[in-house]
Amino acid sequence: MDAGFVDLGFARVDTDRDRRQGAPEAIVAEGKTPDEVREIARALLEGGASSVLVTRADADARAAVRALAPDAEEDERARLAWIARDVPEARGRVAIVSAGTSDEAPLREAQVRAQLLGTTVTVHRDAGVAGLHRLQPALEDLRSADCVIVVAGWDAALASVVGGLVAAPVIGVPTSTGYGATFGGVSALLSMLTSCAAGVAVVNIDDGFGAGTIAARIARRSAGRA
Amino acid sequence: MDAGFVDLGFARVDTDRDRRQGAPEAIVAEGKTPDEVREIARALLEGGASSVLVTRADADARAAVRALAPDAEEDERARLAWIARDVPEARGRVAIVSAGTSDEAPLREAQVRAQLLGTTVTVHRDAGVAGLHRLQPALEDLRSADCVIVVAGWDAALASVVGGLVAAPVIGVPTSTGYGATFGGVSALLSMLTSCAAGVAVVNIDDGFGAGTIAARIARRSAGRA
Amino acid sequence: MDAGFVDLGFARVDTDRDRRQGAPEAIVAEGKTPDEVREIARALLEGGASSVLVTRADADARAAVRALAPDAEEDERARLAWIARDVPEARGRVAIVSAGTSDEAPLREAQVRAQLLGTTVTVHRDAGVAGLHRLQPALEDLRSADCVIVVAGWDAALASVVGGLVAAPVIGVPTSTGYGATFGGVSALLSMLTSCAAGVAVVNIDDGFGAGTIAARIARRSAGRA
Amino acid sequence: MDAGFVDLGFARVDTDRDRRQGAPEAIVAEGKTPDEVREIARALLEGGASSVLVTRADADARAAVRALAPDAEEDERARLAWIARDVPEARGRVAIVSAGTSDEAPLREAQVRAQLLGTTVTVHRDAGVAGLHRLQPALEDLRSADCVIVVAGWDAALASVVGGLVAAPVIGVPTSTGYGATFGGVSALLSMLTSCAAGVAVVNIDDGFGAGTIAARIARRSAGRA
Amino acid sequence: MDAGFVDLGFARVDTDRDRRQGAPEAIVAEGKTPDEVREIARALLEGGASSVLVTRADADARAAVRALAPDAEEDERARLAWIARDVPEARGRVAIVSAGTSDEAPLREAQVRAQLLGTTVTVHRDAGVAGLHRLQPALEDLRSADCVIVVAGWDAALASVVGGLVAAPVIGVPTSTGYGATFGGVSALLSMLTSCAAGVAVVNIDDGFGAGTIAARIARRSAGRA
Amino acid sequence: MDAGFVDLGFARVDTDRDRRQGAPEAIVAEGKTPDEVREIARALLEGGASSVLVTRADADARAAVRALAPDAEEDERARLAWIARDVPEARGRVAIVSAGTSDEAPLREAQVRAQLLGTTVTVHRDAGVAGLHRLQPALEDLRSADCVIVVAGWDAALASVVGGLVAAPVIGVPTSTGYGATFGGVSALLSMLTSCAAGVAVVNIDDGFGAGTIAARIARRSAGRA
Amino acid sequence: MDAGFVDLGFARVDTDRDRRQGAPEAIVAEGKTPDEVREIARALLEGGASSVLVTRADADARAAVRALAPDAEEDERARLAWIARDVPEARGRVAIVSAGTSDEAPLREAQVRAQLLGTTVTVHRDAGVAGLHRLQPALEDLRSADCVIVVAGWDAALASVVGGLVAAPVIGVPTSTGYGATFGGVSALLSMLTSCAAGVAVVNIDDGFGAGTIAARIARRSAGRA
Amino acid sequence: MDAGFVDLGFARVDTDRDRRQGAPEAIVAEGKTPDEVREIARALLEGGASSVLVTRADADARAAVRALAPDAEEDERARLAWIARDVPEARGRVAIVSAGTSDEAPLREAQVRAQLLGTTVTVHRDAGVAGLHRLQPALEDLRSADCVIVVAGWDAALASVVGGLVAAPVIGVPTSTGYGATFGGVSALLSMLTSCAAGVAVVNIDDGFGAGTIAARIARRSAGRA
Repeated sequence: MDAGFVDLGFARVDTDRDRRQGAPEAIVAEGKTPDEVREIARALLEGGASSVLVTRADADARAAVRALAPDAEEDERARLAWIARDVPEARGRVAIVSAGTSDEAPLREAQVRAQLLGTTVTVHRDAGVAGLHRLQPALEDLRSADCVIVVAGWDAALASVVGGLVAAPVIGVPTSTGYGATFGGVSALLSMLTSCAAGVAVVNIDDGFGAGTIAARIARRSAGRA
Repeated sequence: MDAGFVDLGFARVDTDRDRRQGAPEAIVAEGKTPDEVREIARALLEGGASSVLVTRADADARAAVRALAPDAEEDERARLAWIARDVPEARGRVAIVSAGTSDEAPLREAQVRAQLLGTTVTVHRDAGVAGLHRLQPALEDLRSADCVIVVAGWDAALASVVGGLVAAPVIGVPTSTGYGATFGGVSALLSMLTSCAAGVAVVNIDDGFGAGTIAARIARRSAGRA
Repeated sequence: MDAGFVDLGFARVDTDRDRRQGAPEAIVAEGKTPDEVREIARALLEGGASSVLVTRADADARAAVRALAPDAEEDERARLAWIARDVPEARGRVAIVSAGTSDEAPLREAQVRAQLLGTTVTVHRDAGVAGLHRLQPALEDLRSADCVIVVAGWDAALASVVGGLVAAPVIGVPTSTGYGATFGGVSALLSMLTSCAAGVAVVNIDDGFGAGTIAARIARRSAGRA
Repeated sequence: MDAGFVDLGFARVDTDRDRRQGAPEAIVAEGKTPDEVREIARALLEGGASSVLVTRADADARAAVRALAPDAEEDERARLAWIARDVPEARGRVAIVSAGTSDEAPLREAQVRAQLLGTTVTVHRDAGVAGLHRLQPALEDLRSADCVIVVAGWDAALASVVGGLVAAPVIGVPTSTGYGATFGGVSALLSMLTSCAAGVAVVNIDDGFGAGTIAARIARRSAGRA
Repeated sequence: MDAGFVDLGFARVDTDRDRRQGAPEAIVAEGKTPDEVREIARALLEGGASSVLVTRADADARAAVRALAPDAEEDERARLAWIARDVPEARGRVAIVSAGTSDEAPLREAQVRAQLLGTTVTVHRDAGVAGLHRLQPALEDLRSADCVIVVAGWDAALASVVGGLVAAPVIGVPTSTGYGATFGGVSALLSMLTSCAAGVAVVNIDDGFGAGTIAARIARRSAGRA
Repeated sequence: MDAGFVDLGFARVDTDRDRRQGAPEAIVAEGKTPDEVREIARALLEGGASSVLVTRADADARAAVRALAPDAEEDERARLAWIARDVPEARGRVAIVSAGTSDEAPLREAQVRAQLLGTTVTVHRDAGVAGLHRLQPALEDLRSADCVIVVAGWDAALASVVGGLVAAPVIGVPTSTGYGATFGGVSALLSMLTSCAAGVAVVNIDDGFGAGTIAARIARRSAGRA
Repeated sequence: MDAGFVDLGFARVDTDRDRRQGAPEAIVAEGKTPDEVREIARALLEGGASSVLVTRADADARAAVRALAPDAEEDERARLAWIARDVPEARGRVAIVSAGTSDEAPLREAQVRAQLLGTTVTVHRDAGVAGLHRLQPALEDLRSADCVIVVAGWDAALASVVGGLVAAPVIGVPTSTGYGATFGGVSALLSMLTSCAAGVAVVNIDDGFGAGTIAARIARRSAGRA
Repeated sequence: MDAGFVDLGFARVDTDRDRRQGAPEAIVAEGKTPDEVREIARALLEGGASSVLVTRADADARAAVRALAPDAEEDERARLAWIARDVPEARGRVAIVSAGTSDEAPLREAQVRAQLLGTTVTVHRDAGVAGLHRLQPALEDLRSADCVIVVAGWDAALASVVGGLVAAPVIGVPTSTGYGATFGGVSALLSMLTSCAAGVAVVNIDDGFGAGTIAARIARRSAGRA
């Protein structure tokens, strides 16, 4: 009989999540040893996960993933490692737009997660509000996407601007980019939560992973269930 | 030539929003006089809005809406007034679940908004985590919805529980229900933002309106664009 | 000999401020009795103030001002009363733009103060970012002003948008408009302080008075000292 | 005559605490030199402490404890060192359940403290709410314990879920696990404090020591005083 | 078949809680109409609850309870109403000590709840640290109790003083008593959470109900299960 | 035998404080009924208190004090009532300076308390930093006082200015005067705590009582113990 | 056709800003790689920027700028690097005054930015309020400037003192100088925002860049547009 | 003519402070280079300062002081360096009591400062409330002091206990000792500010220097001015 999880002693790996929610459990490497990361990843693979994604992974954690699977990929700046196994055929499209070059890490986290869950992702970087004309070339792509992710730090005004221009659901990722009264992303978070544009929902600060997860769900559903 | 808005002097009513985003501008009554509420509502109706929704409306503001349109409806507890005109045919289904009886106002706000945007809405009240078995009868309905809204105050643990059980996108509405260290909804907000379940995105405290807006967009898209 | 102030016992009225700073002392009515407001106003007038402005004045405080000076004017919604005496000839122009109808009180406070200090003021209401096209008709006026004041609550994204489009100095007035995570104007304040547009400086929440003061100084200087 | 403490100059070691409260004073190593840690530990041992527990101890502090007592034990990850001398015979049972692998350090702190005070401790790791079925196998053990400790970071929803299922007193340990809006454990703390389940009390963030102390007191009393 | 709850439409009353946790569901009246309060109370009574306790109940809510049950009791200052039906025979003893006269409401809440759950409660009022000798006469009673509840606002120093003197588990109830930097009970809450005395656990601000619940569980268990 | 307090049931009145600390216990009326205020006051008088001071007293509480003692005095604006009985002969001098007219209530609280404890008090109102020349006439008096109390809201810059000019100990009373980012006195509190002038210590927001207490102690000691 | 920006893939460099706002885009180096900094700088130069300023630049980032342009200058302490190309002829004067030696970095940031935008800058260091006489020699210069920048940490009382003495617009830069309750500049920020002197506007904590930008705009306009 | 300060370019050294306030300017080393520290110290010595005290000084800063004056003393743990030159003859006595061994650094800062200003200082370490009997031996000394300084982290309950037992003015120094919800000393600060004992005033977190300054002023005055 299957309990739906594998007990490793230090972890109970939820091998049922793919079936239950259409998205496998992922691993936050912070607070875990490389050995723990590797063993959880192994249990997920053996449990049939469509992919394994390790976030906030330092060099040691990423090496542990590579040691487990030669086909693992990684992104140093975004502190990601991942193994793509049974990634579903892409359905629906997620468009990501970031406010600045420094928002790259959460942007990449969202992109990789959404792709591993089986969506097409288009990306538009550094289109912040200080120079609004830079958003212009991206607008058509944003407007035709099934879901839009806005990644922005500082005052995160981009979320409201995009939220007022597109018809698709918008997911905001506030980032910790900035200094002083940005308070590690709090200002961006509050700004997005109180956006004067309706139809914007928000995830945790720097949580590209969460945004990628919900955006992929929205996009795949929008593209039809058949 | 159409500027896409009507200038009333005290307000520039965005009559283009329905066309641009598939959802008409709404009116937050707080901070506005009943006369202002009525005139903005009138401009929206004249501009062809599919519906007019007034939130956080006291008795005077609701009376102003009724004076404008005999077919206006209202909800005293939720401080809502609305006029349904060209509500699109319902497509897709949003399921709303609340943690407690005291979360009724934002629940209703989400429900009315999502219906006015053209979705079917099912509602499950008072299924908080303190008695988890109360969630059981709602689960099948939640699992088959196109989008799930969780309305919860206090520690908002219901968001994570539901977020771990369903495959649909989940929108959390933290509420100001509670006292002491609930801090007017801050604890619920933080709890939802840091939910251990992936795929949850969050709107402002007590913002049923925002949740209804994004949920309707998701649900209608999930039901197909044709 | 002139000490530069008048001692009323309960107040030391700074009758030197007009000379020293080109702007008379003003009176915050909150926390003062109507009698105190009237006597401070009287001392200012007798000390030769170019104008007297009473902010955050309830009906009693405003009545006290009217009792003192038949030519007093007032604005109930903005809780203002003022007496214009030797208002300098207008020099320079301040443009004020607000995000929403509910930002009227601080907008008016800024407008009246700037006018009393001797500037021309133009006003553009309800041009929030959720419908960016509503800002378009105001842009030429904003771009040609000597100083721009942005009055906005919620996420105050308008400050960054305007800050990225005009060459004049921009003064942001965050307002307490909104609910939930707006936290009485804190979100708007943080958003403006961390604006991604350079050249924006910020005053206290709802402090139209402060914005009007610095804007008038900037505008009058820009128009030449002669 | 016995003053009930030993004055080391830099510390007044409370050698009376075991007698007074049934639990010896412990040592927080942070902010103390290794020499100070060792001398306080020595004074406790000489004063007849049933055990010595050093928390938040880096390698140097742990080495100082080992140098004092060859029978000292340690846990590097949990930054603990301890010396068991007259540990009371175990009475009563404390069950600890954690939400994730990264909550190991405070879990261990609670476990070691409760054991040193004379209780049996059972441990269930990584049973977070995102995969609720993982809690199932632990439920019988939790329900039959004399006191349950829930160790959880992020949104700490596990506290409410467990708090709604067991009849024993529940002690929550919010942990600093997580990033962004977890704010170093504040979100978990607030979530536990506002738990919708009654009968949950909370200790400081990451304070496994405090939880172990009160849980052991509860468990030993529940098992009878004879 | 029994679902373990009664669905009233606006509420799912957890009639299983007494059986599951030895303590019936209670009703927070704030945010509920008097009718809702009455109907939930009725369902609890019909479901066999050992008692019904309504907290934060204004005059209307309390009247609704009295209308339902002539034997209902109430406490105006503490905003409580309750119906005692099958209160278990008292077992174990809870001692409550408050810091000041103004802490009466949460003190009473804790007292009534603990009594309704079947414990003996002794009470010591106004023994704050500013005059430590006032605690002296209460000490013997506190030391012999099965569980001690400390109710204190301001700096809540009483929690640490008591926590350092007794061997029983201590539950702290921070109260919103005070002004200025007490911040509605936050200072008391933080003080109790960071108590230098081990063995103290804390509930929400003003949450006498929660303290009474866990204290009764502890006291009854300590007195033996037989 | 004298326990040093009188037990009224709802209060343990510390009748020993005058002897122990040279200052009688005072009564914060908020949270107490008028009857409780009166009975505590009676017990203090009967216990030989040199004076009775009731702070934060509304009309009912003040009436209760007057009913007890015909010689009671009161100050409506400062919400004070007091009974002077054996006030010590004045020794030493406290100088109080306030930043604005709206700081009157805590100023009066400090003044009355310091006088009741037996000091001479001089007062200088409305000498805020915006017009620094208004401080000039007060400087000699401030410099020759035994202790200086600065009462200021908003940014409380006056504390640093005075703290840099006088040699006496300076006690800061931050007040809740102001709006917006004054956050009920938090900005003034932080400003005073981080004063760039050394020798400033701070009491709670609006706590004129506390400032009067410590200032009187300082002033009386400075004037010699004989 | 010119889009007004250059798309580098990782950045969209706003080459239109000089024309649009009279001030070129600047580069915050934090969060960017040295290569990215260099390429953005290159694109700005090629786009005809009047100057390039890189803030919060560590040694690697500064080296990247020097590698690009041999005429680059730098300031290690202020973490700045800049390339002056077509700096406009200086017009108007900005006066900067700092409260302490430790405020040097933001002071320098403001100074360099204002100079690169074409203003004369005078600087007065370490004139904090604790020794007010140190401000005296600077007063005449401050009073005759077109705009005054006050750079201060701790309680930032200097902003109010200067704000009460000069007639020019005052821009406050709160700094993170200090420890404890300075909270990384929050106390200085709040103090400046709630300054009792009118006519003060504030930028982000440590944001000398922003202050230099708006001050230069003000000063140049004040000196006449011809 | 003497301006009362020496202008070093990077600093205006207040050489008048000893004369004006009876206490020389001190140097916070953080944010200053060792060269700057040395030159300010030199200017103070040459200006006739009775002593030079450098706080928060790392090894380099302390070395710079020693290089200037061979008679300099230092305390590594407390990060202090000082030069005693014309220290006034000791008058009055300050008693310092700390709650724990980890509060040593601010304790030492207070002690050294008070001694350099010319007082006798007695010290009692580690008398925290968790073991109240440890305070007993210190009480007589505390009660006979002219001023008492309480140094405490965590919940700082010691301030209230001492504040309720002594008649002398009490200065509280909240410390950053602790973890979790101590929030870097905020809990201790709030606890001391809201102390239920009257007559306690508070300085900044970890600000032993400020406490030593005001305590010395109080103590010297108490001992008579002759």
